Amino acid sequence: MKIAIYGYGNLGRGVQAAINQNDDMELVGIFTRRDPATVKAEAPVYAAADIQNFKNDVDVLIICGGSATDLPEMTPALAADFNVVDSFDTHADIPAHFARVDAAAKQSGHTALISCGWDPGMFSVNRLYASAILPQGKDYTFWGKGVSQGHSDAIRRIEGVADARQYTCPVEAAVEAVRSGSQPELTTREKHTRLCYVVAKEGADLAAIERQIKTMPKYFADYDTAVHFISQEELDAHHKGIPHGGKVIRTGQTGSGANHVIEYSLKLDSNPEFTASVLVAYARAIGRLHGRGETGCKTVFDIPPIDLSPLSPDELRAHLL
Amino acid sequence: MKIAIYGYGNLGRGVQAAINQNDDMELVGIFTRRDPATVKAEAPVYAAADIQNFKNDVDVLIICGGSATDLPEMTPALAADFNVVDSFDTHADIPAHFARVDAAAKQSGHTALISCGWDPGMFSVNRLYASAILPQGKDYTFWGKGVSQGHSDAIRRIEGVADARQYTCPVEAAVEAVRSGSQPELTTREKHTRLCYVVAKEGADLAAIERQIKTMPKYFADYDTAVHFISQEELDAHHKGIPHGGKVIRTGQTGSGANHVIEYSLKLDSNPEFTASVLVAYARAIGRLHGRGETGCKTVFDIPPIDLSPLSPDELRAHLL
Repeated sequence: MKIAIYGYGNLGRGVQAAINQNDDMELVGIFTRRDPATVKAEAPVYAAADIQNFKNDVDVLIICGGSATDLPEMTPALAADFNVVDSFDTHADIPAHFARVDAAAKQSGHTALISCGWDPGMFSVNRLYASAILPQGKDYTFWGKGVSQGHSDAIRRIEGVADARQYTCPVEAAVEAVRSGSQPELTTREKHTRLCYVVAKEGADLAAIERQIKTMPKYFADYDTAVHFISQEELDAHHKGIPHGGKVIRTGQTGSGANHVIEYSLKLDSNPEFTASVLVAYARAIGRLHGRGETGCKTVFDIPPIDLSPLSPDELRAHLL
Repeated sequence: MKIAIYGYGNLGRGVQAAINQNDDMELVGIFTRRDPATVKAEAPVYAAADIQNFKNDVDVLIICGGSATDLPEMTPALAADFNVVDSFDTHADIPAHFARVDAAAKQSGHTALISCGWDPGMFSVNRLYASAILPQGKDYTFWGKGVSQGHSDAIRRIEGVADARQYTCPVEAAVEAVRSGSQPELTTREKHTRLCYVVAKEGADLAAIERQIKTMPKYFADYDTAVHFISQEELDAHHKGIPHGGKVIRTGQTGSGANHVIEYSLKLDSNPEFTASVLVAYARAIGRLHGRGETGCKTVFDIPPIDLSPLSPDELRAHLL
């Protein structure tokens, strides 16, 4: 299967690495908005504007753009000429994005997958399986401990801040309460805390920075937030990774009143590399669906698990079932 | 969707309870090899031999028989006239069972699902997802703490034993070693222990019973086994439930050497009721696949998650993705 990457940041590099781990896939090109001559990669690098010249050379195009402004434009546009996979993760806007991509893909006869990764993605699939199995129940999603790029960026925009890294942390007591099957009602504050490591510029007003972080609406005001000022050296030494993870837990009752707990959890050293690995497995499925004549926009809900694997149905039944 | 149950033991009663929790399903009949007049149920009870009279009244038949002798005969035979779902769980014999059921269902134009439940079933699906996402990795399945009926029965057959209950327990140190990402090689003994509660008959040789349990080939000899003699009252008071569960863990590395841990775990107060709930969700999917003209034998690997849910695709994308 011939794969191309559109957008070459952390996620795009992760996709390149994931393709290397899958023998049935070949990376035929990387498309970037930067000057291709300045980009080092393990495959030919082309200008994004030239993508139309490769219509017949790519089975599935993995679009590695941002959800805020890139993907809402890119995915419908590229679905006119390619089978595409994206990681659109603005949950509230998924129905609108789906409608646009579905219209484009159906018109062109291509196959698209949106909102792939781990949340949305594997967490979504697990919410669906668990709610179908235990209709009388309640599910909870916890994130972390992991780095939120959006929250880290928000801190960096504060005056006097040189650098920052923000971790989202699940409240262990809340996780345990959920696992108990008591189906608690939990506020935002009760589910997660926010842990900030901040490098201040020389002479900055530390108290003012801390106050601005803790009172920032949406980002921090609804959470218990801890702020630690550290040196740039310390941040570089201990906080340069991009770990993340989390868990989806559903508890529910069956006929006799018996309690059941279904839990899916991820602990990821590299958020973009794991997300990329999910995208690549689903790219395989999208190539197969297109081969079967299934066009339009899909989500992880529509994909039979078997289409993610390079192994044959016989092998899977014999060894994994 | 009109569902019928074939076989009315613990699992069949669990299916009846699960159907009650799903508003889009109706239980149209229960078929038993016992005298129907002696069976109390929440739906009409018929003799198993009369099932052929109901060919046109049942959308999906859930077969609740044992894997040792019932299902290898029942599922192919019933697939000649019905869409069927079973929980065949003898892992080594799945390919042969699949072939027989597939031939029967294809010939009759029906749709069948075999080996549904949690292992095989949800554990299998999770092994597949995780191995497709992290091709460079290793997966582990742990069972328990939970009751093994087969091991409990094996103890009861020993001379001098009045009753017994056996729990399979994961070794926590092994689970932690797996979660660390070190990908240890674990022997049978290192992964699970066996915990036995035994009621001895009056005057029985307790030391002989304990020795016979601990040295029993296949069942106990390869495990560290603890034997506790208790009274029938104590066993009835504390060990009459049928809890089970376990976990599937895959750890793997992506491009930069980053480690990732994917874990799916179940903690079930009632093994048969949870298994039944999985069967019922998949019965919905099999009814839909049949409606789309997909015939032959399927497994959980073939079923798109979306077909398990009573919710519409729009609702699922808006609320669970």
